[in-house]
Amino acid sequence: MKKLLQDYKSGKIPLSKVLEKLKSLPYEDLGFAKIDTHREIRKGFPETIFCQGKTTAQILAILKKTSCDQNILLTKVNKSVYNSVKKQYRNARFNESARTIVIQRWKPKPKKGTILILTAGTSDIPVAEEAVVTAELMGNTVEKVYDIGVAGVHRLFDIKDKIFNANVIIVVAGMEGALASIVGGLASKPVIAVPTSVGYGASFKGIAPLLTMMNCCAEGVAVVNIDNGFGAGYFASIINR
Amino acid sequence: MKKLLQDYKSGKIPLSKVLEKLKSLPYEDLGFAKIDTHREIRKGFPETIFCQGKTTAQILAILKKTSCDQNILLTKVNKSVYNSVKKQYRNARFNESARTIVIQRWKPKPKKGTILILTAGTSDIPVAEEAVVTAELMGNTVEKVYDIGVAGVHRLFDIKDKIFNANVIIVVAGMEGALASIVGGLASKPVIAVPTSVGYGASFKGIAPLLTMMNCCAEGVAVVNIDNGFGAGYFASIINR
Amino acid sequence: MKKLLQDYKSGKIPLSKVLEKLKSLPYEDLGFAKIDTHREIRKGFPETIFCQGKTTAQILAILKKTSCDQNILLTKVNKSVYNSVKKQYRNARFNESARTIVIQRWKPKPKKGTILILTAGTSDIPVAEEAVVTAELMGNTVEKVYDIGVAGVHRLFDIKDKIFNANVIIVVAGMEGALASIVGGLASKPVIAVPTSVGYGASFKGIAPLLTMMNCCAEGVAVVNIDNGFGAGYFASIINR
Amino acid sequence: MKKLLQDYKSGKIPLSKVLEKLKSLPYEDLGFAKIDTHREIRKGFPETIFCQGKTTAQILAILKKTSCDQNILLTKVNKSVYNSVKKQYRNARFNESARTIVIQRWKPKPKKGTILILTAGTSDIPVAEEAVVTAELMGNTVEKVYDIGVAGVHRLFDIKDKIFNANVIIVVAGMEGALASIVGGLASKPVIAVPTSVGYGASFKGIAPLLTMMNCCAEGVAVVNIDNGFGAGYFASIINR
Amino acid sequence: MKKLLQDYKSGKIPLSKVLEKLKSLPYEDLGFAKIDTHREIRKGFPETIFCQGKTTAQILAILKKTSCDQNILLTKVNKSVYNSVKKQYRNARFNESARTIVIQRWKPKPKKGTILILTAGTSDIPVAEEAVVTAELMGNTVEKVYDIGVAGVHRLFDIKDKIFNANVIIVVAGMEGALASIVGGLASKPVIAVPTSVGYGASFKGIAPLLTMMNCCAEGVAVVNIDNGFGAGYFASIINR
Amino acid sequence: MKKLLQDYKSGKIPLSKVLEKLKSLPYEDLGFAKIDTHREIRKGFPETIFCQGKTTAQILAILKKTSCDQNILLTKVNKSVYNSVKKQYRNARFNESARTIVIQRWKPKPKKGTILILTAGTSDIPVAEEAVVTAELMGNTVEKVYDIGVAGVHRLFDIKDKIFNANVIIVVAGMEGALASIVGGLASKPVIAVPTSVGYGASFKGIAPLLTMMNCCAEGVAVVNIDNGFGAGYFASIINR
Amino acid sequence: MKKLLQDYKSGKIPLSKVLEKLKSLPYEDLGFAKIDTHREIRKGFPETIFCQGKTTAQILAILKKTSCDQNILLTKVNKSVYNSVKKQYRNARFNESARTIVIQRWKPKPKKGTILILTAGTSDIPVAEEAVVTAELMGNTVEKVYDIGVAGVHRLFDIKDKIFNANVIIVVAGMEGALASIVGGLASKPVIAVPTSVGYGASFKGIAPLLTMMNCCAEGVAVVNIDNGFGAGYFASIINR
Amino acid sequence: MKKLLQDYKSGKIPLSKVLEKLKSLPYEDLGFAKIDTHREIRKGFPETIFCQGKTTAQILAILKKTSCDQNILLTKVNKSVYNSVKKQYRNARFNESARTIVIQRWKPKPKKGTILILTAGTSDIPVAEEAVVTAELMGNTVEKVYDIGVAGVHRLFDIKDKIFNANVIIVVAGMEGALASIVGGLASKPVIAVPTSVGYGASFKGIAPLLTMMNCCAEGVAVVNIDNGFGAGYFASIINR
Repeated sequence: MKKLLQDYKSGKIPLSKVLEKLKSLPYEDLGFAKIDTHREIRKGFPETIFCQGKTTAQILAILKKTSCDQNILLTKVNKSVYNSVKKQYRNARFNESARTIVIQRWKPKPKKGTILILTAGTSDIPVAEEAVVTAELMGNTVEKVYDIGVAGVHRLFDIKDKIFNANVIIVVAGMEGALASIVGGLASKPVIAVPTSVGYGASFKGIAPLLTMMNCCAEGVAVVNIDNGFGAGYFASIINR
Repeated sequence: MKKLLQDYKSGKIPLSKVLEKLKSLPYEDLGFAKIDTHREIRKGFPETIFCQGKTTAQILAILKKTSCDQNILLTKVNKSVYNSVKKQYRNARFNESARTIVIQRWKPKPKKGTILILTAGTSDIPVAEEAVVTAELMGNTVEKVYDIGVAGVHRLFDIKDKIFNANVIIVVAGMEGALASIVGGLASKPVIAVPTSVGYGASFKGIAPLLTMMNCCAEGVAVVNIDNGFGAGYFASIINR
Repeated sequence: MKKLLQDYKSGKIPLSKVLEKLKSLPYEDLGFAKIDTHREIRKGFPETIFCQGKTTAQILAILKKTSCDQNILLTKVNKSVYNSVKKQYRNARFNESARTIVIQRWKPKPKKGTILILTAGTSDIPVAEEAVVTAELMGNTVEKVYDIGVAGVHRLFDIKDKIFNANVIIVVAGMEGALASIVGGLASKPVIAVPTSVGYGASFKGIAPLLTMMNCCAEGVAVVNIDNGFGAGYFASIINR
Repeated sequence: MKKLLQDYKSGKIPLSKVLEKLKSLPYEDLGFAKIDTHREIRKGFPETIFCQGKTTAQILAILKKTSCDQNILLTKVNKSVYNSVKKQYRNARFNESARTIVIQRWKPKPKKGTILILTAGTSDIPVAEEAVVTAELMGNTVEKVYDIGVAGVHRLFDIKDKIFNANVIIVVAGMEGALASIVGGLASKPVIAVPTSVGYGASFKGIAPLLTMMNCCAEGVAVVNIDNGFGAGYFASIINR
Repeated sequence: MKKLLQDYKSGKIPLSKVLEKLKSLPYEDLGFAKIDTHREIRKGFPETIFCQGKTTAQILAILKKTSCDQNILLTKVNKSVYNSVKKQYRNARFNESARTIVIQRWKPKPKKGTILILTAGTSDIPVAEEAVVTAELMGNTVEKVYDIGVAGVHRLFDIKDKIFNANVIIVVAGMEGALASIVGGLASKPVIAVPTSVGYGASFKGIAPLLTMMNCCAEGVAVVNIDNGFGAGYFASIINR
Repeated sequence: MKKLLQDYKSGKIPLSKVLEKLKSLPYEDLGFAKIDTHREIRKGFPETIFCQGKTTAQILAILKKTSCDQNILLTKVNKSVYNSVKKQYRNARFNESARTIVIQRWKPKPKKGTILILTAGTSDIPVAEEAVVTAELMGNTVEKVYDIGVAGVHRLFDIKDKIFNANVIIVVAGMEGALASIVGGLASKPVIAVPTSVGYGASFKGIAPLLTMMNCCAEGVAVVNIDNGFGAGYFASIINR
Repeated sequence: MKKLLQDYKSGKIPLSKVLEKLKSLPYEDLGFAKIDTHREIRKGFPETIFCQGKTTAQILAILKKTSCDQNILLTKVNKSVYNSVKKQYRNARFNESARTIVIQRWKPKPKKGTILILTAGTSDIPVAEEAVVTAELMGNTVEKVYDIGVAGVHRLFDIKDKIFNANVIIVVAGMEGALASIVGGLASKPVIAVPTSVGYGASFKGIAPLLTMMNCCAEGVAVVNIDNGFGAGYFASIINR
Repeated sequence: MKKLLQDYKSGKIPLSKVLEKLKSLPYEDLGFAKIDTHREIRKGFPETIFCQGKTTAQILAILKKTSCDQNILLTKVNKSVYNSVKKQYRNARFNESARTIVIQRWKPKPKKGTILILTAGTSDIPVAEEAVVTAELMGNTVEKVYDIGVAGVHRLFDIKDKIFNANVIIVVAGMEGALASIVGGLASKPVIAVPTSVGYGASFKGIAPLLTMMNCCAEGVAVVNIDNGFGAGYFASIINR
């Protein structure tokens, strides 16, 4: 653009041409370019590929388009996808429980605060692990306590120090999802609730915990999509200090 | 029937006549009569009229058919219904919060155990009061603690003795309904959960707490219909000793 | 704690130290410990593992943490899980229909009352069997009548004595779930209704019978989650005398 | 059309004209006219106006278009509509409970069979009455038994002769709607089930009884729309002999 | 019973004994026995086994309990079930499209009227075939026209004679289910609508056609459960003359 | 912008300043301004105010911001809103049935094609009228046929010429919404379907016709929101020639 | 028909016979025949077979009935269906991504306008491709831009010329489906929105994007069924010039 | 407690007594007391009363229990509640649009970051205002831009600086709720989405925007309950620096 204006000043191109050019400039040249650069710097988290419903070929094609100095996170992958990715990206790391692949090129600056990740049950662990991988890749210290249960709410007292010391808390729960309410009632820091689709009967693939968490009477609780561990980890990271 | 058989024996009526009569006898004479008498004696709770959707005229007509030595409970009534009932049934007692009318003719034998009735919020009180009226009319000692909240789950510790000493517990809660899970996790006695239609947004007129309670991970919790305080009080009474 | 206080009295540790220690004591030492001991004694039912959505490895890991003198119940298991469990727990018993494994270390004191378990159809039997296993492990005498059907409601009259003599009744039904209403209308004892996800079309994986049972006009009926045979057996046991 | 062809034969109009005319003839002249005449004769039931959501002016306008020798039925009307209709149609009869107006010009030939109309509760009566009005206007003998209840299913035995003697049975029920299943199990004649929107909580404006009736295990039961007493009366009439 | 009364008259047994016996008599001896015999005679349709969700072993066990001179219909079976049944019931006939097995022991008296069975699409045929098998086994003459489509509603005119001549019409349709409305608008005979779960997107496993059929503006249409071809065939048969 | 560049060329402002300015220019100066001018010219339809849920004060405030040479359409208004608007906009025209106010400042160029607007019932007329007002304000010739009914589908044949001659067809229907399918099957021009919230029972405030229309088997049918007559009129207008 | 009338004129057949014949003529001879010919000519799109839920045998049978000089489109097919079709229709072309087979016999006249097809994500491509195949077979020029994303809405600015130059726009999107709203806000031409069933959690198989698109605030957006790429391509084609 | 231990040391009370006392101490004395003090200090936000569904008497009673040096916020109030509160709390301030009452006793320390609050439409303003009141009472600087619209997404560019400079963003939107996705795609700071129940048709009282926001593809977006402006303001406040 600089050149364009200089050419105009020097008389190489007429005013009408400049005006026309300006109108058809891609947005990157006009201030919005800053957005993406901004993002990378401030968030320290360049690019994520949601792999469910995509073929391995599509995933590899998308991977090729990512720039080679960014950190990459692939979510909802299986072992077979990993095997294909591994061939081309030697340093790709697979987390089977979290169903993620990480290709790490640089280390984010560590944050001071801790993110505490809790699950109500054992079956909620994969979703929680997706949050863990996401948060760690973004430079957070993560502490995790799994399988607390609601029926054993008094067990929360054993971890009360962790609850008070965490800077952000993620609660992953299926079935009735009440753990989010209870933790929200004890904690003074933001709680991010993740409903999961585990369970049976009237849990209706995550609708029951979603509604429970939505109606949470405790202040300071917000909700992300069912099974969206990545979203919770990401959100927690941008509010962690 | 006794007479029928005696007449038959004495020859007054032939065998064919007896057989025909037996086949068309109303069921009350044939063993099932025992059911209703049984009920009254064992349950101590004769007749309930659910008044929502009924005109005052219909309610009075139904009242007339009830026998005059039974206790009567009318639920979901308003003041105007009460005024009409009062004119004909002098001893009718109105509970405005519970929206009930009681016409009491005899005192049930008091039961030993206590029924503890808890609500999560202030708006759940009318439903809880319906349970209180029902349970007391059936001879139970009722203890109530309202407005506990889930956000303040640690407040439950103040009433832990009540929870441990109760014989049956009724938990009335709208919004996310998580109180039932929490109490179910602490108590070793049966918990009856009543979802309420109070709340707003994604509580969807009681669907949210209903699903939460249905998916309750704590053992020993069963659920009755949304806003069904009467049903909870009744069920609690028949399992109270 | 006793020692702590004695040391304090003898002057070994100062008052400030005692106060600090008391505040960080795990809750087990402070009254709540009583809960769990209480539970085991009064309920006679130590530990259940819900196995759906858990890997065999996770199930074995959880099993290891259970104490070795308790009775253990695993629900929603399949044969392959059983084969793995069997290797380490010789006395593990598998009930294929109920999809349960029981590891029994002691015999609960038998209760006086009988629990009657009814199903509407043949397909409801697995859920009913889960209730049977649960109730028997908790010391109850169980009587069962399967495949009654609603279309053949007059057949209920053949078992009217069982209905009148039972102390608690569990009704397991899919499709329209009307059996719970009918039994609730005949019986004077508590009825626990279990909707099942069998059926097709507008039964919507158990929503239809769940709603039917929720709206049950008969008094004395409470509902547990879809397919939750364990919950019904457990609830029945704690109200059985 | 006859004239057209005669004119053609006599040479008054050419072939091309006849062909053109035939193609643009209104369908009434071409075989389908028979439908409507047919209908009236065979069904004995000319014209119904569903009045909910229509202004009184619209209703009167539609009434004007009906032919003056037919029987007219207006459904879901209120008193104010009746007052306006009455002024112009002196013999209009209002049924307040059924919310219907009938303008009768001729008497249908009475049918031999009886239609039995049952309701589970008192609040279901308006819908049942709509069915009664409809069926009677179509020449049927109607017998009605209201407020049977499901909780008191054994009461059905008092009316077993009515059930066996009816030619068609209409069951009107809200809440859990189980009465349809039970009657369907006893009767050998067709049962038409009408869910009603009365009730509260999880009856969800008629969804609960609709699903119950849909999933009805008894053979010989079909369902019409929620609160559609007219549809039930009409369907019953065309299958009654 | 006759003998009982004669023994009583002759003094062999006292009055008290007779009374006691009468009260514990199975209902079959008391008028209701007539029901089942009645049913078989009037309906000409003894016993149906709904096989979905049942094991082959269970199906064979139920088959064994059926009396050997009745006609048997098994619905929602697959080839493998048929192979097992065939071994023990030589004359079992399998209809792969309808997914039914028929074991026929006697021929029902043919009825005069015809049942017309229509489908909107090709994918609705299995459900329609279930209705065909059911209706034919019950002595009806069945005429079928498949794959009419709604988009080609003018094609209905080719079959208008079939529509006018049929005594009962069954319409089987998925997706938007509008065919039932259209046929209901043309026909003067009862129309039984069967929603099917075929389709994709917003047909939601049959909910869309179910709602369409429920809201059908044409009179004379009633609905059975999603995919319930048997129910439609049965209902059509009992209203066919 | 022209001036900016000229000042730059003449040396009045330096290059850095120009670059900075360009980045903070409001989008209107950069090509997107064309959008809005474009819109007005090509669509001939400047501004619509959806008034439901807005106070009269808010509506008047929004009106003030509209430019005074545009045509304005207010939808979902009542008489009281009109009275307030009328005081300030003398030429405001109210259509009570359509619940619209039109303030017309210029006449759009008439389009050649005709838009045919059909309703299934009388209660669908207000939504259809909203479409009529919208389409006419946008320069379309509108033909309307109301109250066709689905039950009387053969009546469509009377208007077949209108269907074949229209350029676009709007079908407004509540209850089962099948009219859209039928018209879609006959017509070769685009059909826009508008579900309405009229009806009762299982029409569920428009969900039933919405699903029916969504699942429409006829090609050439697209759907707009429940009761969205404006959207249908608008969409029809931009595809009309 | 001509012959019929001539025979009548010449006296070969009497008037009564002519009248009778006219009434039973198939509709094709009476004006409606024009419909189908009309369709083919005007739409340039003869016959589509929706293959989901149909066996290969059924598909081949339907194919046989199509006339051999028409273009045929088969949707929702898999490779195995293609292999069977290929054997009999040598020129059948398979599009694996779109899941379509095309048998092309003639080339439609190309249209002037362009249809722009956008997808929000990679997983929406199969549905978009179905639209592409459909639109191209109907003579349209198609331009496609896939994987725009909503999160990267500013990227739309790169394709703003395509948006302004297209004659019709199809937006295919799952998850939250917001792309349709955004494009609808920018474009002045009709936008056809296609929700897809990709995604997870609270996207509920396409319900979330369907509702989003339905509630779209931008004017000029209409919606087709979930995953219905064919319907979108078809609708776009008949409104393209 | 201190005294208890001293008395024990001095021999006034025996060891057994101390142990017993410790077990029955209210939780406030045991470390949890710290929670509540903690909360007040760190959150600067003592007590909120949700007034919907509560009587004025109940609200006043709850108010009385609040301590007199705290800030109080009452939400979902109407003018009549305000008039009653005003009489006893002279400094109570009413915000009619937000439907809140604030009783402020101290000023929170102002935070550095800004919270930006956006609404899609005019009808979303009351919910947004509730968030404004909440956030301001908690010491935040709030900037607000209302009525952005989705259809006019390009208008977002006018406020891009506000979006980039805000520390937290709250997006309030009904109907399709797509604004949250779009803002989420532009911003690098946390976005809190609030669905509102405004709108009509298929917005279903807020379900449509709730699902849209849940499925939001942009990272960094979390959701609170429908119409829960308070919750959004509160959550924004605790993550604002």
